[in-house]
Amino acid sequence: MTKRLMAEFFGTFWLVFGGCGSAVLAAGVADVGIGWLGVSLAFGLTVMTMAYTVGHISGGHFNPAVSLGLMIGGRFDAKDLLPYWAAQVAGAVVAAAVLFVVVSGGVGFEGVGGFASNGYAEASPQGYSMMSVLVIEVVLTAFFLIIILGSTSSGAPAGFAPIAIGLGLTLIHLISIPVSNTSVNPARSTGVALFAEGPAVGQLWLFWVAPLIGAAIGAAIWKMMTTDD
Amino acid sequence: MTKRLMAEFFGTFWLVFGGCGSAVLAAGVADVGIGWLGVSLAFGLTVMTMAYTVGHISGGHFNPAVSLGLMIGGRFDAKDLLPYWAAQVAGAVVAAAVLFVVVSGGVGFEGVGGFASNGYAEASPQGYSMMSVLVIEVVLTAFFLIIILGSTSSGAPAGFAPIAIGLGLTLIHLISIPVSNTSVNPARSTGVALFAEGPAVGQLWLFWVAPLIGAAIGAAIWKMMTTDD
Amino acid sequence: MTKRLMAEFFGTFWLVFGGCGSAVLAAGVADVGIGWLGVSLAFGLTVMTMAYTVGHISGGHFNPAVSLGLMIGGRFDAKDLLPYWAAQVAGAVVAAAVLFVVVSGGVGFEGVGGFASNGYAEASPQGYSMMSVLVIEVVLTAFFLIIILGSTSSGAPAGFAPIAIGLGLTLIHLISIPVSNTSVNPARSTGVALFAEGPAVGQLWLFWVAPLIGAAIGAAIWKMMTTDD
Amino acid sequence: MTKRLMAEFFGTFWLVFGGCGSAVLAAGVADVGIGWLGVSLAFGLTVMTMAYTVGHISGGHFNPAVSLGLMIGGRFDAKDLLPYWAAQVAGAVVAAAVLFVVVSGGVGFEGVGGFASNGYAEASPQGYSMMSVLVIEVVLTAFFLIIILGSTSSGAPAGFAPIAIGLGLTLIHLISIPVSNTSVNPARSTGVALFAEGPAVGQLWLFWVAPLIGAAIGAAIWKMMTTDD
Repeated sequence: MTKRLMAEFFGTFWLVFGGCGSAVLAAGVADVGIGWLGVSLAFGLTVMTMAYTVGHISGGHFNPAVSLGLMIGGRFDAKDLLPYWAAQVAGAVVAAAVLFVVVSGGVGFEGVGGFASNGYAEASPQGYSMMSVLVIEVVLTAFFLIIILGSTSSGAPAGFAPIAIGLGLTLIHLISIPVSNTSVNPARSTGVALFAEGPAVGQLWLFWVAPLIGAAIGAAIWKMMTTDD
Repeated sequence: MTKRLMAEFFGTFWLVFGGCGSAVLAAGVADVGIGWLGVSLAFGLTVMTMAYTVGHISGGHFNPAVSLGLMIGGRFDAKDLLPYWAAQVAGAVVAAAVLFVVVSGGVGFEGVGGFASNGYAEASPQGYSMMSVLVIEVVLTAFFLIIILGSTSSGAPAGFAPIAIGLGLTLIHLISIPVSNTSVNPARSTGVALFAEGPAVGQLWLFWVAPLIGAAIGAAIWKMMTTDD
Repeated sequence: MTKRLMAEFFGTFWLVFGGCGSAVLAAGVADVGIGWLGVSLAFGLTVMTMAYTVGHISGGHFNPAVSLGLMIGGRFDAKDLLPYWAAQVAGAVVAAAVLFVVVSGGVGFEGVGGFASNGYAEASPQGYSMMSVLVIEVVLTAFFLIIILGSTSSGAPAGFAPIAIGLGLTLIHLISIPVSNTSVNPARSTGVALFAEGPAVGQLWLFWVAPLIGAAIGAAIWKMMTTDD
Repeated sequence: MTKRLMAEFFGTFWLVFGGCGSAVLAAGVADVGIGWLGVSLAFGLTVMTMAYTVGHISGGHFNPAVSLGLMIGGRFDAKDLLPYWAAQVAGAVVAAAVLFVVVSGGVGFEGVGGFASNGYAEASPQGYSMMSVLVIEVVLTAFFLIIILGSTSSGAPAGFAPIAIGLGLTLIHLISIPVSNTSVNPARSTGVALFAEGPAVGQLWLFWVAPLIGAAIGAAIWKMMTTDD
């Protein structure tokens, strides 16, 4: 069990350090900054790389909503759920702490600001309402689980799932960064919220509730689509 | 049959929600917006991810022109054509409706504008004529079918077709967003046209006619290239 | 033989229509244009998609320099060289003609300008000298052949070569668009030169000479690296 | 042995010529320049393409830190370490020299400036401190080695490692170009430092020390995650 939890710890560390790190460090620099397209690619590549690296050790969830959805979908044992969640949140928090150290060495550093945290209403990157954020986080997490369950099913070609899942997460960011700054992952939201300025901690409940509900819906849709009548 | 139609419904939902959603929500934001490059990537990734996810269930068409071309190419049964078209259009319309809900929660929302619809002349993103739009939609849909038929043929390496087809759709968008906002898919055009402001519904005929003709031409070229003399 | 030449014709058509088309239509549009990054991706994806589509029919060269290098590398029969070159140039010219039709339907059309042609000195996108252009075209074509020969060799994992080769061409464009507008392919240069305004036809010799020399050097390096001492 | 060293020489040449070349030639051009996102993609694609091309000959390290980490991880023979390092540094230096020739043919050329060299404090692209640069180079090289060791392990799907490793390097650049201009590779840093203006040579020690320490840490973490208790 220890190796599997280490894999989830380091995988979620990488997701937060790479995805949120690229957002905080490189997205908004004038002229040559990577923008939301670069951040979207970075989040997806964290999952793609780690799924190839430790997917065969832990399953490569790196996300409490994914662990829940896989449990509902019958691919993951319920007794492992809480240990996985703990390892994922721990990896996210440690990653955010290391990122904080790097960022605080910037010239004229005066604070981390939003620190790539998720939010709605005044904390949404483009001011979208709580309802818009709820809807998009539920829908996108549902499809994320459908992609995960489908691309790793026995009917899909072997070996390609990390590409489908990783670039699926890139796609999810391409759609929703302006709305919610994209969570679909409660661990990712929690890690940076602890260090962010602004309302991130107070809004964190939504980025647990919506992804978990979305994951359950996605797993249910997948089962409907594949169970014999 | 129900499972196959569900797969087409959700796959086309994902194509419209992800592709048109990224265009409407994230393309034009100043400085960090994803631009047409990000939108091109998003459209391609919707197809790549869903082809890995449900390709083994329904074939992964998500597009009435693709279903027609595969029928002409001898890969798809004519009696399934209309049910597939219905599922694809339904998925596209529902996706556009959900996207409408998200967009309407934007700060200071005053309407969806073009809503990523396709158009020619005054409705072309860069003002291209109806003739330019017709030519490019026919040519690009023809090549899309050639890529689909070739990359899924028995001579091609197994498992890679979703990459070739998905990133082929990305390429198609990189070329033609400025001309027609890129359709090559009548369901995608129909879904957003119903919600768009402007001439989208009145111009919708072209985005059924041109992709269907292009798909037929593509299938014919593929058969020429592979039939024994 | 006819099927193989058709495959080379359509493959090179796609390379020019997609690569040069994205450059002419979508690269320079303000705010949302795809820039050189998008054009680089488009060129690479034309080759990746067509290599998966017709690679098993013709070998998927789409480029006279590649055909020469494969001949020198012992992978391609010398008697097929000139027919392949003819099919490639024909595909490139027809693609440029169709692209011309599309472009001429643009609002306020007044001419195609450089039309994505290659050039040096005053015709280099950033004014690089003939010597810089010669060096970079030779070096990049040499590495393009090394990648092609290596990724399709028996030691490399099967099925991945179109990804390595296609994205290798993307990489080549990321480096050299500012220098030469990137050729490494005499057919691509010839197709658009015939329609371009400016010195493209007069400079076309370099974009035959440098890629062919580079391809020969690349094939020679590959043979050095793999022949038993 | 000679073939393996040739493969490392040409692979590292390609990494520096392609990665640093895209940065120097194409990153900062107004409007259509490729930005840090394009440079990140270029670096990753140099490794992905060459890993498919010569990975089966030399292992495809192209980086002294990778060779060290693989040695610590038990995948590479210690007696080959110094010859590999020599071939890698030689390839990097020759690539930088050829790039210098190309750049010096630019219109109004007045010097190469930073020449894509790595740096900290006043030589960091965004002015990050030596401590920030040390931390990020150590962390990123550690994860680079974890990805390399994991994606090439017997549990991972065969053939995909060059994608995971190459796009992993893209991800690393998306995070850290603003901080250190991204090394994680002492050979890459050395090659361009010899030609750069400014403090690159004087700061070169850090870009040997940090990647080598990071590689050792990454190999140690991988062994912890995979050794039976």
